[in-house]
Amino acid sequence: MKPNVAAAKAALSHIEMDENPATIRSKSRDFFWYSPLLKDRLDHVQADFVVNPASEAEVIEVLKTCYAHDVPVTVRGAGTGNYGQAMPLAGGCLMHMKNFNKVKSVYPGGVIAEPGCIMKELDDEIRAASGQELRMSPSTYAMATLGGFIAGGSGGVGSVRWGALRDLGNIIRLRVVTMEAEPRVLEFRGEEVPRVSHAYGTNGIITEVEMPLAPAYDWIGIFVSTEDFDEAMRFAADLANEDGILIKLASVYEAPMAKSYFQRVNAHVTERDHLLGLMVAPHAMDAFAIFAARYPGARVIYRSDASDWPRAPGPVYEFGWNHTTLRALKFDPSVTYLQVRYKYPDHFELVEQVRAEFGAEVLQHLEVLRENGKVCFAGLPIVKFTSEERLEEIVRRHEEMGCMIFNPHRYTLEEGGRQSTDQRQLDFKREADPKGLLNPGKMIAWDDPDWSYDQIYAYPGLLPKEAAE
Amino acid sequence: MKPNVAAAKAALSHIEMDENPATIRSKSRDFFWYSPLLKDRLDHVQADFVVNPASEAEVIEVLKTCYAHDVPVTVRGAGTGNYGQAMPLAGGCLMHMKNFNKVKSVYPGGVIAEPGCIMKELDDEIRAASGQELRMSPSTYAMATLGGFIAGGSGGVGSVRWGALRDLGNIIRLRVVTMEAEPRVLEFRGEEVPRVSHAYGTNGIITEVEMPLAPAYDWIGIFVSTEDFDEAMRFAADLANEDGILIKLASVYEAPMAKSYFQRVNAHVTERDHLLGLMVAPHAMDAFAIFAARYPGARVIYRSDASDWPRAPGPVYEFGWNHTTLRALKFDPSVTYLQVRYKYPDHFELVEQVRAEFGAEVLQHLEVLRENGKVCFAGLPIVKFTSEERLEEIVRRHEEMGCMIFNPHRYTLEEGGRQSTDQRQLDFKREADPKGLLNPGKMIAWDDPDWSYDQIYAYPGLLPKEAAE
Repeated sequence: MKPNVAAAKAALSHIEMDENPATIRSKSRDFFWYSPLLKDRLDHVQADFVVNPASEAEVIEVLKTCYAHDVPVTVRGAGTGNYGQAMPLAGGCLMHMKNFNKVKSVYPGGVIAEPGCIMKELDDEIRAASGQELRMSPSTYAMATLGGFIAGGSGGVGSVRWGALRDLGNIIRLRVVTMEAEPRVLEFRGEEVPRVSHAYGTNGIITEVEMPLAPAYDWIGIFVSTEDFDEAMRFAADLANEDGILIKLASVYEAPMAKSYFQRVNAHVTERDHLLGLMVAPHAMDAFAIFAARYPGARVIYRSDASDWPRAPGPVYEFGWNHTTLRALKFDPSVTYLQVRYKYPDHFELVEQVRAEFGAEVLQHLEVLRENGKVCFAGLPIVKFTSEERLEEIVRRHEEMGCMIFNPHRYTLEEGGRQSTDQRQLDFKREADPKGLLNPGKMIAWDDPDWSYDQIYAYPGLLPKEAAE
Repeated sequence: MKPNVAAAKAALSHIEMDENPATIRSKSRDFFWYSPLLKDRLDHVQADFVVNPASEAEVIEVLKTCYAHDVPVTVRGAGTGNYGQAMPLAGGCLMHMKNFNKVKSVYPGGVIAEPGCIMKELDDEIRAASGQELRMSPSTYAMATLGGFIAGGSGGVGSVRWGALRDLGNIIRLRVVTMEAEPRVLEFRGEEVPRVSHAYGTNGIITEVEMPLAPAYDWIGIFVSTEDFDEAMRFAADLANEDGILIKLASVYEAPMAKSYFQRVNAHVTERDHLLGLMVAPHAMDAFAIFAARYPGARVIYRSDASDWPRAPGPVYEFGWNHTTLRALKFDPSVTYLQVRYKYPDHFELVEQVRAEFGAEVLQHLEVLRENGKVCFAGLPIVKFTSEERLEEIVRRHEEMGCMIFNPHRYTLEEGGRQSTDQRQLDFKREADPKGLLNPGKMIAWDDPDWSYDQIYAYPGLLPKEAAE
């Protein structure tokens, strides 16, 4: 440990820390290993120490102390992100928010909470208090933290109704601490929220969150199978377009994904069955039954409120979004995935083009979501990994066909997003993190403003592999 | 009074009745007089007696007795419909549901209530019990009954989010009594609901309703003005397409409607100002402010939570939907209106075509709604009435341009709808009303199956004008 890091650690010794080397290693890692490219590049990455602040005052102390000692600080929640968001590329201090997790208030339409709240536990508390719940959450709901979702997520279960986290109105207010000699505490609302949301903690640390809420229901989890892929896509998108039928999730899994990867489901499907995973409000079930009967090849094989399956499959959302990839990886560690956007009104056609070109090399996993008021698809296809070059080619071909790729084989904000500088985030980093110590290496615009995106960005400050081994 | 009618009335004398001739006349009338054509044809129409049942047992007694005596029965709620739905064309018994108005149960996502509940009072009770409210309601919310809305309405405030009443999932269950020697009580769910919803009480009497609910908020009423009509349309539709901004109403009023017809608003606008009426959830107001700032010509001139207007304008929804026409008629009894559907994706272009053709003869009043998941416009334009022939020509020209017209100058289900037989409703009328006594004259398919729609249908059983005068 370098002397400056050791000094910072010593100065923070009154705050809870993890000292066990195995814990330090595990808390230095997120779900970057979904990507073979990131696994190759980041597997050795590890923080020097892990600190667990329990309050804004302790967060300020960590930031102020690390600033004084020039120690990088990477913040994380549960580390369920897949883009290496929470990987401490330059080592230093890993600030884990698990203890900073109180619910402050719940009102009709909103909640105010600390960032370390685990989303499912937060929702349990909100539901008990008010019959409401968060509008959207990742499939890692049972582990993920609210702050981590805001800083590193983009949408998920609930996006079929509410759109993406970045859409106007899906975050009400963020309270943020800067990393300066004297950290400042700022409140961001409205136009200012995007300065720090989805910024991976590169330009401020979120210490309080105000989020809009939706009514909570005992959502019915449903699986539907059909041998016709087009019917599966239409069913999912048409259901989302039924204005009177309230749903929270509509996922499409191309065959043989359900047979090959979905334990507890695979006994109920064949190799030829495409699967739909749905969450429907209980009071919409009559309407859902009428709707489903319109699709001649579709069979409702499971509903959570009336199941005869000997072994319950668990929450249907734990098959969707990034859990699909996780389940596939358990059975076949050689696969990986992509993040694709099939935009309205070309979404059906684009998916068919991709299927025609790649066949089983790129198995379709679609999530229905709303974008600018229109129902379309996010794709998280399961990709057979053969080589880095082939993966890059698959990405390139998607883009040539007109699909938008949010590349999950990159650890920078720009490359995982729209491959362009977010001026608001860069400007705020200049104000809030003058020494560039917050989650270093994640914002290309900060490190290398003239980067051309013609190859994978490699952060010069990345810990060398040898040092860690 | 004919002997059979008198006999039925006498047999029902233990149920509450209205005896005052002025009351009988007023309870025989709905808002048909919005239409000069209906006013001309139906102004003399009047029931022989008015009965006010307070329970399903009393409804059954009314139906059974009138069946035995061959007396027509027309059911009504508050009579706020505009298509003459509740006009007792053949006289007879007018069954008024005002006393049949208990809330039976409220649960997360739904309510069970009697049909005579006034919608605003029902919502007050639901809100107090559970923080929920009905998904949609007419602008006559403060007067209209739940049963009347279901039997004679189509959508309204809330349709911008939930679509139309007829969309799958917007009515959960209806309990219905038939008009036979021994009336049967039936329960309709799912596929069976459309047999009797929006059937004007022609084929059964609704005695219990189960409706889905949405969360209740202290909606902020907002007026926005702009001198650019295209900007007004875009603002309204774009706002509805913002997936993260929860709204309940988005209305567009072409200039000089606000100046000419909207008391308490007109001091705050000019002759050139187009007006938007909006209802936005309180927790979406930050996001709304960002959104509104993107429209350079748009000015927020009123918000109900922070108003400096010396005289409050009242609920913003009481300017929208059919209240707009009511306000216009107060200032200019020579106007009337239409009901138009401008479908996605041609909605903007169709409105501009209509404006170009008719100018001030047809002033645009648009309501944003969702149809098959897409945001589009319902039009309730204010039309200068010159003659029946010209009005028919205006309707025809709209249809030629590709607009759909729900003609409010007709009193039959078919002519006010899609000009075709609803086989489900006709089939059920054969079962439930074998003598054809329920709201006679409103279903052409029952009276004259070969009707060609080449002229206004004239029910042969309509009370003659002389008889009433």
